[in-house]
This record gives sequence, structure tokens and C-alpha cells, in this order.
Amino acid sequence: MKAVLEKNKIERETILEKLNWRYAVKKFDPAKKISESDWEILEDALDLAPSSMGLQAYKFIVVTDQETKEKLKPAAYGQTQITDASHVVVFAYKKTLTDADIDQYIERVAKVREQTRESLEAFENSLKSAVSQAIEGGYIETWNSRQPYIALGMLLETAALMDIDATPMEGFDAAKVNEILGLNDYSAVAICALGYRDVENDWLASLPKVRMPKDELIQRI
Amino acid sequence: MKAVLEKNKIERETILEKLNWRYAVKKFDPAKKISESDWEILEDALDLAPSSMGLQAYKFIVVTDQETKEKLKPAAYGQTQITDASHVVVFAYKKTLTDADIDQYIERVAKVREQTRESLEAFENSLKSAVSQAIEGGYIETWNSRQPYIALGMLLETAALMDIDATPMEGFDAAKVNEILGLNDYSAVAICALGYRDVENDWLASLPKVRMPKDELIQRI
Repeated sequence: MKAVLEKNKIERETILEKLNWRYAVKKFDPAKKISESDWEILEDALDLAPSSMGLQAYKFIVVTDQETKEKLKPAAYGQTQITDASHVVVFAYKKTLTDADIDQYIERVAKVREQTRESLEAFENSLKSAVSQAIEGGYIETWNSRQPYIALGMLLETAALMDIDATPMEGFDAAKVNEILGLNDYSAVAICALGYRDVENDWLASLPKVRMPKDELIQRI
Repeated sequence: MKAVLEKNKIERETILEKLNWRYAVKKFDPAKKISESDWEILEDALDLAPSSMGLQAYKFIVVTDQETKEKLKPAAYGQTQITDASHVVVFAYKKTLTDADIDQYIERVAKVREQTRESLEAFENSLKSAVSQAIEGGYIETWNSRQPYIALGMLLETAALMDIDATPMEGFDAAKVNEILGLNDYSAVAICALGYRDVENDWLASLPKVRMPKDELIQRI
């Protein structure tokens, strides 16, 4: 029993070591690819991220096809991470939500948790009312577009824990990315390129992190 | 050397085990508090999160004062996590950015990286132009309000890795929270309650996670 507990404990200093090691890579080594078994863990992290009311009103498009990366690159203003990285993930949020989306979700909750639809009626109604309020209030896109950033944070951390590099990017033309990927109901809001840093050719690799003074960033009450 | 490498490697399955263990706690044990040494690691995770162009245009308000929690609770529609959790973090984004903010940031970059202001001129200009475009385009708030969600994702994952529970929340009246905390230039966009689950009194603790079919969530190209 002791051995199992030891095995499953993650050292605090190791977490910080990995988070300090992480930085937004400017130059990936195009020859180094993320293994399929490692990639599956990163996809699991995306899947396990929480989202508002559990709705997962987003989609992740994972691009490894070099031709598609070449198409995406000009839409990301020529940033070489797009074509050099092993995997490129496009984070796209659902532009709106319908009653049909909620119904499908409630069906899934009922099935997975072995509950009746009736027992979920109050939950269903609160979801539908929150969504229609967001649509009427004109903030459904703002709301939905924030959710994938939680998954982005978890992808970045999971990658760092696995000694895999990543670059989160917002500098791209979303309309062009949507067109290239054939997105209609969804819209690209962030991109994350993942792979392995090319230390010798990345000017940022050796520079220290710049952060706000901690007492300005975090206030304790 | 071998021993060091072993020590710093995090097992893939342990990461997934922790992410599967994580869920949005409905009932915290009010008697269990997060230790100060653990809390400092969670603050480091918030600090180490990346943000658009490194600007950290946000602020984290950490509430442990019970009286303040009691004031916040009605603004969060009476959710008991606010008062039962050990620590409550309010994620607030900066409503706008000025040239002074950018100047301050560039000064910090120059100092930390031992670079001259002149060598950072191109970077400074690109930041200022991106920010004024966002202000003119009316999307500065949307943009800034997404950034803290990356830190939220990393806080949730770091907590899970440390066997600490958390509940991300968006169900609150931001105007009231801003008023209680005296926020003016910033606005609350998310809250995260952290502590330890009360397994026996939390109806959600034993229920399985509900997720979209993976091939709908993740598309590979």
C-alpha cells in the first residue's frame, strides 16, 4: 500500500520546475515528433478539462498534415511554429447553442450517470434558461469563447509535465483559419503548436521569464 | 545522475489519474484548510501561466477572510463553496490597456532580460499597435477577459496534481463582486474555490464524468 501511495504522489518542486521550464517556443525542431502514445495523453487532458456547465461547447482540431499546416501558416502571419511543430491544435468555440445541443447533453448525462431524464429536468431548465439569457443578452459568443482557454491552460501544463514544448498563439486571422478548416458553427479562437524546442536557434529559449511583481498580481484578503 | 532524472520524471498515468480524480466540488469540508506552503505553490502556478504577449492584464484576489467570503456568497447566488472552501480566488481582467501599461511592461522586460529599451522598440510598437487596434475594434475586454482562463486551467490542474480540490465558477454577479472587492479598473470574470471535498455530503463526488464522444470533440487532420 505504501509503495502505491509513494508512486502516485507528485513532488511539489517537480511541478514548479516543469512550469518554470515551459515558455512560448519561438523555434521548434521540425525533426522531432511527439509520439502517438504521448499525444493520446495530451488529447485526454483536453477532454478532461472542465467547461461551463459541462457543455464542452468547443472543438479541437489537431493538425499534423504538413500540407494543411502550410495552408495555415500565412493565416498565422507566417509564424514558423505552425509548420515546424509536431502537432498544431486549433481551439474553436461553438458560436451559439441551441435547445438541441442541451437536449443532446442531457441525454448523455442521463445515460452516463444512469439517471432518468425526469430527474434532470431542473438542471435542463436551468441550462436552457442560462443559454437563452446569454443569447438574448448578446454574450453567448463571449462566454463560449472563453471556455477553450481552460483546456488550453491544461494542455500547456500537461505538455510541460511531460517535457513537451508548446506555444499558445492568438496572432492569426480567425476567418481564414475557419475557412481552411471548414469551420461554420465553430470559430477558431486560439492555436497551440506543440513539439520540441530547437534550443540553439530559439532566441527566447535562454531568456528569463518576465512577470509582474507578485504583490501586484495577487492580492490577499 | 540517474536518480535525479528518475525523480524529475512525472509518470503519464499519474497525470491522468489526477485529472480524472478532479471534479467541480459541490460540497467542501469547511474544517480542512490548504497549508500555506501548498498555497504558495498554487500562487506560483497562477504567476507562471502565460498570457497574451506576456502582459498579465489581470489580477487574482485570494480570499481567506471568512467575513469577505460571507459577503461574496450572495453575489454568487448562495453557493456554499464560497464560504466552505479554504481559499477563494477571484479572477479579474483589466478592462482596458493604456500606453502606460505597455511602457511599464517594456521597462520590466528590459530590466529582467538586461536589454536596452531601444532594442525592444519593435516589440513595444507591435504591442501598442495591437492594443490600440483592440480598443478601436471594441474587443479589448473580450480579449483581456479570456486570458485569466489559461491561469484558471493551470490552477485547476496544479491543484489536482497536489490532491487539492477546486470548483471553477462563473455563476455570480460580477458587478456585485467588483463592488465588494473594490475593483474599478478590473472586472471579475471567474471564481475558483479551493479546499478539500466533503465526499459524504457531495452528491457529485461519486458520479462519473460526462464527456462528448472523443471523435466529436477532437478532429484530426
